[in-house]
Amino acid sequence: MVPADIPAKARVILDAIAFDDRGLVPAIAQEAGTGEVLMLAWMNREAVIATVERGEAHYWSRSRGVLWRKGETSGQVQKLRDFRVDCDGDTVLLTVEQTGVACHTGRHTCFFRAPRGDALAEIVPVSVAPETLYGTGPDKGKDKS
Amino acid sequence: MVPADIPAKARVILDAIAFDDRGLVPAIAQEAGTGEVLMLAWMNREAVIATVERGEAHYWSRSRGVLWRKGETSGQVQKLRDFRVDCDGDTVLLTVEQTGVACHTGRHTCFFRAPRGDALAEIVPVSVAPETLYGTGPDKGKDKS
Repeated sequence: MVPADIPAKARVILDAIAFDDRGLVPAIAQEAGTGEVLMLAWMNREAVIATVERGEAHYWSRSRGVLWRKGETSGQVQKLRDFRVDCDGDTVLLTVEQTGVACHTGRHTCFFRAPRGDALAEIVPVSVAPETLYGTGPDKGKDKS
Repeated sequence: MVPADIPAKARVILDAIAFDDRGLVPAIAQEAGTGEVLMLAWMNREAVIATVERGEAHYWSRSRGVLWRKGETSGQVQKLRDFRVDCDGDTVLLTVEQTGVACHTGRHTCFFRAPRGDALAEIVPVSVAPETLYGTGPDKGKDKS
């Protein structure tokens, strides 16, 4: 049940999503323009509503058990450009404008490992030192799922 | 534990994946060349090995409880071009050459719904009639997750 005061745009999205038994749906973030797949995180109803209302990607952190605005610690926000739902409603695809890098390791995308020869290689360089994104204090690594 | 006779390329991928408590990992399929995100399905260890060994995407069907070669019924196979693992190993990204369409609805991508105005619109056309892909017999809709 979605409260009546939810904006129509969020309501039609929520109605189309088949949340899993934890109340979550996987959300793929794809960069506008380049088409690069940046990351996958999870959304609950609150994250969907916040993302649509504020125009910036919000996710549900399964490890920390909190709603999480992407970039709240690191500044690496994702401005929402479009919000797609798949055929059976069990995955969503966000088109975003990524500020800086998506990955907490300082790489543009989280998908930076792939087999090359008989080893797993790191095929995307580190663009920003993680310490620059998070410092070394208590917030270190906070801005991740 | 991965048996010793698994090819090295599959072994390094398996070692990097953090399968969930059901033994599954979400797998995003992205089209080579266009960069279009086609679908998300799930893989278990067996699906990862089959995908790497045979060079075609295999998934684990959660609804049918079987290993599933994408396109086995519809002919809409996905030839594997690359296999990436994300930073914390809980999502994989397949780069694929898609034969025909990825979606069982006959659309090129499963992500064909998005809010337009106050409604959810179908923003990707049907390219192939689903009956052409699956017929109307007992296999109807079989080639989906």
